[in-house]
Amino acid sequence: MGRSLEISFKDVSEMDMTVIDSGSLRNLCVDILIAEGFGQDVSTDIVDVLLEADLRGIPSHGVARLKRYIDERNAGHIKLNKTPSIEYETPLSAVVDGRGGPGQSVSKWAMNLAIEKAGNNLVGFVSVRNSNHYGITAYYSEMALEKDMIGIAMTNSYPLVVPTFGREAVLGTNPFSIAIPGSRHPFILDMATSVVTRGKLEVYDRLAKVIPEGWAVDSLGVDTNSPGEVLANFNNRRPGGILPLGGSGEEFGGHKGYGLSLLVDLVSAGLSFGSWSALTYREGVAGVCHFFGAMDLKLFGEPESMKQQIQSIIDGVVSSEKARGSEKIYYHGEKEELSRMYSLSKGVTLDPKTVRNLVALAERNNLQIPGQLLQ
Amino acid sequence: MGRSLEISFKDVSEMDMTVIDSGSLRNLCVDILIAEGFGQDVSTDIVDVLLEADLRGIPSHGVARLKRYIDERNAGHIKLNKTPSIEYETPLSAVVDGRGGPGQSVSKWAMNLAIEKAGNNLVGFVSVRNSNHYGITAYYSEMALEKDMIGIAMTNSYPLVVPTFGREAVLGTNPFSIAIPGSRHPFILDMATSVVTRGKLEVYDRLAKVIPEGWAVDSLGVDTNSPGEVLANFNNRRPGGILPLGGSGEEFGGHKGYGLSLLVDLVSAGLSFGSWSALTYREGVAGVCHFFGAMDLKLFGEPESMKQQIQSIIDGVVSSEKARGSEKIYYHGEKEELSRMYSLSKGVTLDPKTVRNLVALAERNNLQIPGQLLQ
Repeated sequence: MGRSLEISFKDVSEMDMTVIDSGSLRNLCVDILIAEGFGQDVSTDIVDVLLEADLRGIPSHGVARLKRYIDERNAGHIKLNKTPSIEYETPLSAVVDGRGGPGQSVSKWAMNLAIEKAGNNLVGFVSVRNSNHYGITAYYSEMALEKDMIGIAMTNSYPLVVPTFGREAVLGTNPFSIAIPGSRHPFILDMATSVVTRGKLEVYDRLAKVIPEGWAVDSLGVDTNSPGEVLANFNNRRPGGILPLGGSGEEFGGHKGYGLSLLVDLVSAGLSFGSWSALTYREGVAGVCHFFGAMDLKLFGEPESMKQQIQSIIDGVVSSEKARGSEKIYYHGEKEELSRMYSLSKGVTLDPKTVRNLVALAERNNLQIPGQLLQ
Repeated sequence: MGRSLEISFKDVSEMDMTVIDSGSLRNLCVDILIAEGFGQDVSTDIVDVLLEADLRGIPSHGVARLKRYIDERNAGHIKLNKTPSIEYETPLSAVVDGRGGPGQSVSKWAMNLAIEKAGNNLVGFVSVRNSNHYGITAYYSEMALEKDMIGIAMTNSYPLVVPTFGREAVLGTNPFSIAIPGSRHPFILDMATSVVTRGKLEVYDRLAKVIPEGWAVDSLGVDTNSPGEVLANFNNRRPGGILPLGGSGEEFGGHKGYGLSLLVDLVSAGLSFGSWSALTYREGVAGVCHFFGAMDLKLFGEPESMKQQIQSIIDGVVSSEKARGSEKIYYHGEKEELSRMYSLSKGVTLDPKTVRNLVALAERNNLQIPGQLLQ
């Protein structure tokens, strides 16, 4: 499990990349969605979340998704004339039917409901069924931070991940996020429960690189070094897929990653009576399920001193001695924040395909194309 | 990340192992603790949890710990004349000071408090500081199941784990467990957030086997194949230690395991104003912190149909196609349940060192030694 196969993603991003200031990019994307009939509010919801991913250096969940969302609306997965409905409710919780609405709009609404309940009663949990892809998970967990609450968010997703000892991709990459406020900065864990995401396999495939053993299995459930084979199996709906965090078998804890992935499905789809990952994206229905939570720090004492206590733990870890060859131990959320600061000042970097798609979408809606995309 | 280094632990356990029926073992262990001055209630609390680990095939957390607990009582870490106190409380939550009491007694008490609160208000969360080693984490999460509640338990622990890009073991193996009721059986995830436990390194060391890259690092923070070196560094308080789930660096998601481990410390020590892992077991104080939660399924609807929904997801995963060479996909908690059924019928297997320690403890307290231990 060495460092030999590390590929700097900068190597990819420096080829033919376009840089655009985030304000211009945001306006263009909102205008495109409005022109495509998404309406002002939904367009803003979607672009806010997608752009946040680009700012943080997570382009797989950024505005590159805009075209896919429009396609999914056209295919009927994303429904624009529906608002979420509460199907069951207690003072501390709710089950929400997203009614096929855009994942970002449904999820902001549901997370706000969790926060509102926690504001009244210290705790709020909301399970959601029948929604769509919602973008980066941390966007929602972080919404709780400004209220001095712990935020929780998770989602199931298109099936790409094989359980330990299995060969069928029945689980999603099923990410979850927990955000905890500190006195100087928060701790924001946001992780796919798989060892890697599909996007990373696509990067290796484009570069014609092999993937290390422990990332994915072929159609027999055996470790493979070929990202192209895994992606082809996805496209042809053959067995095989990405491994859970911890890799294949149990030697490196793959059963733990499998457990985390199944946990996300049980909580999001189980507690909402929705579709688990294997049943999402079938017969014109996305059916994605989420789970959101907010827990007020006042559950456990005075928030200001608790945030100092939390900060002291984070500080203790990151100030411990570094490994040979390493200069820094990061806390979770730090890399994303550093990237965000950089992007806000220097602009957002887009790959050529994303630029082409945005230009085409702008052209078909007779929108003015920012000069930065035409250079 | 292949299967080449897998060692069957049966190879170890078949050498000179002793089998004893669980009832006799339980009585002996309770009698030893009572004779050592632990009192009836505490002795029963401790042995119930330890024996449950042996029954499930987790001897590292079993009655082998009995001698260590007695030593820790003698060293003043475990205090027997103290009961837990509630330092802060809301209808949904509490912060408990374990006052140095035995981890099992403190934790049963705290988890019952969480369950009681959830019984009254659907949700109960209890953070605990100043406790001791509590045994297997699933013991406590499972306590919620019979009430149709989701159970949550986690603990920080003696520092053995290095953060990503670090070389100092400042984090514990920090396990957490979530138990979710199903209609036929529960899902019980119980996992150390490290890739392996110290006990596994000890087994490899005894067998003079190398450990695979991705399990542990040396005092420079570099991957090592020598379990003996890692254990010697622990004993001499030099840097180095076990890696988080996902291994070293970020290629296999080691930053995710690091995040899970830090999360456990932030929740258990952060929300209880207690000692995080790096500060445990100092100056005669164990200071271990836990976190317990209970969430009634009625938060989200009618429990019976919800348990059927949960069961259908678990059934869907385990009935999916198997990898070549694999016969079964397990749900979490299944292997432990199978081992438990076997041990209850055929007896508990103990290694020679544990038998020697139990016999010595019985002798020094003039207790009758079961014949099964003398064969």
